[in-house]
Amino acid sequence: MNHCEDNQTNPKMVPRSKEEIDHIMKRLKRIEGQVRGVQKMVEENRYCIDVLVQISAIQAALKKVGFHLLERHANHCVAKAIKEGSGEESLRELMDVIKQFSK
Amino acid sequence: MNHCEDNQTNPKMVPRSKEEIDHIMKRLKRIEGQVRGVQKMVEENRYCIDVLVQISAIQAALKKVGFHLLERHANHCVAKAIKEGSGEESLRELMDVIKQFSK
Amino acid sequence: MNHCEDNQTNPKMVPRSKEEIDHIMKRLKRIEGQVRGVQKMVEENRYCIDVLVQISAIQAALKKVGFHLLERHANHCVAKAIKEGSGEESLRELMDVIKQFSK
Amino acid sequence: MNHCEDNQTNPKMVPRSKEEIDHIMKRLKRIEGQVRGVQKMVEENRYCIDVLVQISAIQAALKKVGFHLLERHANHCVAKAIKEGSGEESLRELMDVIKQFSK
Repeated sequence: MNHCEDNQTNPKMVPRSKEEIDHIMKRLKRIEGQVRGVQKMVEENRYCIDVLVQISAIQAALKKVGFHLLERHANHCVAKAIKEGSGEESLRELMDVIKQFSK
Repeated sequence: MNHCEDNQTNPKMVPRSKEEIDHIMKRLKRIEGQVRGVQKMVEENRYCIDVLVQISAIQAALKKVGFHLLERHANHCVAKAIKEGSGEESLRELMDVIKQFSK
Repeated sequence: MNHCEDNQTNPKMVPRSKEEIDHIMKRLKRIEGQVRGVQKMVEENRYCIDVLVQISAIQAALKKVGFHLLERHANHCVAKAIKEGSGEESLRELMDVIKQFSK
Repeated sequence: MNHCEDNQTNPKMVPRSKEEIDHIMKRLKRIEGQVRGVQKMVEENRYCIDVLVQISAIQAALKKVGFHLLERHANHCVAKAIKEGSGEESLRELMDVIKQFSK
């Protein structure tokens, strides 16, 4: 990730490994492909029900990758914050994002 | 929609107008952009919480476009089926896709 | 259901059979018991996580009975309305309640 | 809460104050009342849509009390665990229950 080297990474962040990034990117690329697939279906006037089934599949895929990132964040970044004495702040942040998701 | 003319449209489908397609495509293009934005964030090792906030925004946008399509389908295709005597079959299909979404 | 006989039933309603009522009541009684169980846990200062697991079980049970009623309504009342020519109004009502649930 | 004194409270638990218990109990009593209200509606063969609107209101109320308990748990019990050195275990538990809710 050369273009990241000069990136001011958030100090609260345990950087993702190359493997982690690849794994998440693969999922996100698939989701992008699914969104483009839905665009094609809409343009081709494909049946609403078929479009809706695809949208529901994208939602499930997004939920999965979101939960994966949430767990990874808890296990790495929040756990690190706990060790370093800023656990409560990190926990607050976690609860805020969970609230966002539950809306 | 020239490339659609020879498309074997589902007979149950009330075709989308040019305006409808444009409106939905605009939303789906924005969602595609948001997904690509999240990819960039992941590659750049951006903070998990910020990535998660973006994912939650995509979920909200997808839910909105999905509900829009669902309502459109009910108001057009199911309503047409009701008038033409195949309302119950159409209703069954609608309930199945709603079940899918509620999972 | 003697006490229902003089009930001004909604004309859009296909009355529930004794069996249907018994089936739904059984589920709702169980849910009531679960809610009382949670009250007891809160009063006894039981561990939050255990209380939350119970609440999540109640949510799952409610979702199930809700979906059962929704399907029953579609299959009976909406189907009847379709046959009798008021299908579109009934469909609109159905979509409104689905919107409510999806909030 | 005299009847709780001899209760073997979970050591991970920061006990709820009398005020907290009263506040949560009030909400749970209201939810219990709502569940009984739905039972009455079902027995009286009230219109499905009206029953469904009530069920959706109960779901919203349960979600609210659940989130309240979740936040309280994070702010009290997990925060205490972090201070006492068992933060990671407590965080794992929290994530598990969140996973349960997101199902």
